[in-house]
Amino acid sequence: MERQSATGSPVVICECFCRDGLQHEPTILDTATKVRLVDRLSALGFGRIEATSYSNPAVIAQFADASDVLRGIQRKSGVYYKATCANLRAVQRAVADLDKGYGANEISVLVSASESHSQKNLKRSRAQQWDNIRAMVALAADRFRIIGTISVAFGCPFEGRVAVEQVLDDVRRFRALGVRHITLGDTTGMATPETTKHLFGDMMRVAPDATPIAHFHDSRGTALLNYVAAYEAGVRYFDSALGGVGGHPHQVKYGGGYTGNACTEDLVGLFESMGIATGIDKDGLLEASALCEQVLGRPLNSHIARTGWNPLVNTHDR
Amino acid sequence: MERQSATGSPVVICECFCRDGLQHEPTILDTATKVRLVDRLSALGFGRIEATSYSNPAVIAQFADASDVLRGIQRKSGVYYKATCANLRAVQRAVADLDKGYGANEISVLVSASESHSQKNLKRSRAQQWDNIRAMVALAADRFRIIGTISVAFGCPFEGRVAVEQVLDDVRRFRALGVRHITLGDTTGMATPETTKHLFGDMMRVAPDATPIAHFHDSRGTALLNYVAAYEAGVRYFDSALGGVGGHPHQVKYGGGYTGNACTEDLVGLFESMGIATGIDKDGLLEASALCEQVLGRPLNSHIARTGWNPLVNTHDR
Repeated sequence: MERQSATGSPVVICECFCRDGLQHEPTILDTATKVRLVDRLSALGFGRIEATSYSNPAVIAQFADASDVLRGIQRKSGVYYKATCANLRAVQRAVADLDKGYGANEISVLVSASESHSQKNLKRSRAQQWDNIRAMVALAADRFRIIGTISVAFGCPFEGRVAVEQVLDDVRRFRALGVRHITLGDTTGMATPETTKHLFGDMMRVAPDATPIAHFHDSRGTALLNYVAAYEAGVRYFDSALGGVGGHPHQVKYGGGYTGNACTEDLVGLFESMGIATGIDKDGLLEASALCEQVLGRPLNSHIARTGWNPLVNTHDR
Repeated sequence: MERQSATGSPVVICECFCRDGLQHEPTILDTATKVRLVDRLSALGFGRIEATSYSNPAVIAQFADASDVLRGIQRKSGVYYKATCANLRAVQRAVADLDKGYGANEISVLVSASESHSQKNLKRSRAQQWDNIRAMVALAADRFRIIGTISVAFGCPFEGRVAVEQVLDDVRRFRALGVRHITLGDTTGMATPETTKHLFGDMMRVAPDATPIAHFHDSRGTALLNYVAAYEAGVRYFDSALGGVGGHPHQVKYGGGYTGNACTEDLVGLFESMGIATGIDKDGLLEASALCEQVLGRPLNSHIARTGWNPLVNTHDR
């Protein structure tokens, strides 16, 4: 199982500010700013960066410049630059960019673990989405590292409990398609430390050769708690966004409330204070944090950006 | 060891909005509003409520009405109403109120675990403060339940590491004075889950007949994480404040940054989602949360207030 980053740190944080963070922001950043942010993140040591999304520009204006961003960035060796792909057209665009000599080297494809969430978020049934995913993976295989993401894996805002077997079936389907990196998404913050440990544990038993990725939202203030539970279960890949930006500001449509991503600064601070090296340049991260606040024009949700790094690392000497 | 509340719930949350929450707020609430808040909290099922502080009104204007608040509230049987006492004069006022037939039934006295923090926060040495505490406890014993609080127990913003033996010496001193309820305070958010478990574990070995109380601040976004670690170590008494209000807005003086209390709504939501009953009326708590935002005139830091309660409780069926 792939459990180490290119940079050798024991955990790999995927910085999602530039996609999951920006997706619902009313402020459209210009391409140069996005390129500057992605390059800043790679320089700081992130092994994975969610750089953009091949969305339909008519639907999500923020990512109309997806190809331009990917053409503009300076590729750093060993870093995975992820582009989100919602459908086959998106994968076709990703392949076309790659054929022109630039583009992502990682794409993500998404299925909802519940039927209701699939209908409301993806506008199609789970069965239809799996048909899409098969076509997308067939086109993308051998060109990109593919991330299979299972959203609402820990609970659905419409249906409540999601059967574990249904999530594990999705895991098996991804593996059957050759997808080795599989994300369990807690889309609306319904996981607990216990369900986190159980579900990742089950996933690792069902797909022992897959790399599990944890994606928790901080909808109920529990994202960091669940990241530690995932770490204890053996997960080493984690998603977060600077300033805790992201989720759905119009989330009421998808289940209500606050839904920021887990905050990168706070996640890095937590891991480092626990003695778990992240490989991230911490001083530089605070500068990037300030840059994110500057480009969005408001204070974001990082505690560490206000307080500073914890000077202690699991200190308990007698 | 006393590990259950009067109401029989397995955890006892002390609601600190009315004291630790309000202490540094520029908005001075009127007495009637404070009385209404305290009565609301007791009706919701809180077994302990930090109601006010016998502070010097010339220093902290917010609590100039400490006696009036305690005279105005409706005492609910089994509930502990705590007043913070910074010095002997405060205890004298608490005793005088009690002699008049009203007042707190619980007081807290405070020592800093580090010399630097004692000098800067309490304006006296640790030795001087222990002299104060002895006089305060002598006057308060048999009249109040006394809470001995050890601040910066998990690390000092000025000195960094605090020797565990120094904290345990303070624990022993409190026990030698007959103080049975002892709070470890993580004043500037320097604890980790591991140091939390170790320090509370050590404390329970040193003072097995004491009731340990956890007081974490969310300075680095880790308060909930440390509460779970404390729970796993056997702690059942926890402090938090509605909306995560509190700490020092002028915290830079004491070590810098964001320093809200742990948020009561989010802590209750976490425990309940873990299957740990808090005994709190959850619907009523959200109304109280809205009231707190109304009286302070701004949105506060609760995730649950935005998102709502987690409908799932450790659900992991296959």
